[in-house]
Amino acid sequence: MADRPGTAPGSTVPETLAAVPAGRPLSRKVVALGGGHGLFASLSALRRVTRQLTAVVTVADDGGSSGRLRRQYGVLPPGDLRMALAALCGDDAWGTTWSRVVQHRFTGETELGGHAVGNVLIVALWELLGDTVQGLDWVGRLLGAHGRVLPMASVPLDLAAEVEGADPGRPDEISTVRGQVACATMRGRVRSMSLIPADPPACPEAVAAVGAADWVVLGPGSWFTSVLPHLLVPGLAEALVTTKARRLVALNLAPQPGETEGFSPHAHLEVLADHAPELTVDVVLADRAAASGTVAELEKAAAVLGGRLVLADLAMGDGSPRHDPRLLAGAFAQIFEGE
Amino acid sequence: MADRPGTAPGSTVPETLAAVPAGRPLSRKVVALGGGHGLFASLSALRRVTRQLTAVVTVADDGGSSGRLRRQYGVLPPGDLRMALAALCGDDAWGTTWSRVVQHRFTGETELGGHAVGNVLIVALWELLGDTVQGLDWVGRLLGAHGRVLPMASVPLDLAAEVEGADPGRPDEISTVRGQVACATMRGRVRSMSLIPADPPACPEAVAAVGAADWVVLGPGSWFTSVLPHLLVPGLAEALVTTKARRLVALNLAPQPGETEGFSPHAHLEVLADHAPELTVDVVLADRAAASGTVAELEKAAAVLGGRLVLADLAMGDGSPRHDPRLLAGAFAQIFEGE
Repeated sequence: MADRPGTAPGSTVPETLAAVPAGRPLSRKVVALGGGHGLFASLSALRRVTRQLTAVVTVADDGGSSGRLRRQYGVLPPGDLRMALAALCGDDAWGTTWSRVVQHRFTGETELGGHAVGNVLIVALWELLGDTVQGLDWVGRLLGAHGRVLPMASVPLDLAAEVEGADPGRPDEISTVRGQVACATMRGRVRSMSLIPADPPACPEAVAAVGAADWVVLGPGSWFTSVLPHLLVPGLAEALVTTKARRLVALNLAPQPGETEGFSPHAHLEVLADHAPELTVDVVLADRAAASGTVAELEKAAAVLGGRLVLADLAMGDGSPRHDPRLLAGAFAQIFEGE
Repeated sequence: MADRPGTAPGSTVPETLAAVPAGRPLSRKVVALGGGHGLFASLSALRRVTRQLTAVVTVADDGGSSGRLRRQYGVLPPGDLRMALAALCGDDAWGTTWSRVVQHRFTGETELGGHAVGNVLIVALWELLGDTVQGLDWVGRLLGAHGRVLPMASVPLDLAAEVEGADPGRPDEISTVRGQVACATMRGRVRSMSLIPADPPACPEAVAAVGAADWVVLGPGSWFTSVLPHLLVPGLAEALVTTKARRLVALNLAPQPGETEGFSPHAHLEVLADHAPELTVDVVLADRAAASGTVAELEKAAAVLGGRLVLADLAMGDGSPRHDPRLLAGAFAQIFEGE
């Protein structure tokens, strides 16, 4: 039987920091913004290079277990928050077991079928404590999480996309698509995104974390449905613009079918600038292979945002369009070190 | 924010033991058998008088959240196991918070409505780990539980009662009532109980705990549906008969409507003897007021089982038929001490 962590002081130094050479400042305050698998990737990397990590997570999901819980209980969709917490779980038997538990999804056509255990647990904590952030902090403690997970807004949001050619028969027509699932799976080309409600209250703790950060990291992730929404929450966008932190944008390894199909890497940056005209960026991090052939345009787009382009090998060796957490951590460490 | 327990060594000495005068042997191995609120009461008391506590819990519930999960997932009904774990939760903010979480019940006509969070968590751990006892041990660790909780059998069971006068129009007719909910709410007088299947495998860890115990405690609790079933699991009954442990039967404060209505305290012991002819008992513990007027019969019934009667004031001061954990703990301590 594994003990709860903390019973043997000194045993909890996270293995995840082993990749960081001694002497590097692990006390840099880093805030990672995103959602879903993209944020899971950035957190899996960032936990290796800092002990002061905060995740700020999109709350616009309306599909699956999160969508059901959101509709039935009027709460924030818990799924992306849960996944971020799992990405930060402790390295010992305690952290990894509870991480597996919260990520476990019931199967079958039952009442619980499709629900992730952590989603149920988060909603229960919210009901019980009556406080979103406190509830997430308790799940973080359960997991022995190497960092804190916060929602980007205090209320559940809906996404709305202005789309060109959603109907293949009318390629020039602009239409509005509402809902994260619909936005992530639609045909056509997204022109712009907005939130419903348009002026949601930012999570105060998230605003404070951005304000106090040394670095903020946007992306990787579903560009329109996980990355851009942060810039559409007025209070959070203002914090991102005014913070003294340095700003890093981590690009995806490949366009995402249904969302950014046909988007070049630099088009991602242009979309970002369109949605947050006042935002400047210090570093744009891109995978060398993904950027191949468009480096000049990418450098130019980074410069328009006020930043420089950093290229590195970031992909998993298996050819899949996923970030290798070690390579991504190495790139983050080098960038943070160099500034 | 409260830290996880164990981070400050020395801070986890349970308050619950404060009632025990220094020098008393807290290392007595005690096994408490029962289910539901009765077992919750005995555990709430026993956790104050020993550090070596094991609960062995009935697994025949077919109602509510437990019944739904049992039918949908083919697992043991988790509810009584969850309640026993909650009774043993740590005294600090960690233990009490997670205890409230696992006991929290979703309301409303939703998919989760009626489910206790701990039931969902236990079923998830069983799915994930594929091992009943390991899953319960993990919930015990989560709660910082002062003891271990085990099922009485390794498979879900159904109860069947032979009942006299279930139909008020035919008071002499004997009929069979099946299912714990039906047995606990029927009209008429129970003649005998049996299990379906009749020969379920006992939980090996429960058998071992009974074999290694210094004291085993049966009751209080729903007599036919939470206490007697333990004596109907052949392997567990054999362990209870052959263990070198002393045996204590703790009687209820009042007959239970629908189950033991009109049963005198000594009738409870007679029913016990009927269902476990080979079982001897060292001590029968009864509330002084509840036994009032039937002490002679109760002493005789205790003697038939081979034991002596101990009377004590055990009830809450508010007049409700519930055991006061402190008074019950005091009685247990005196009895254990005296032997």
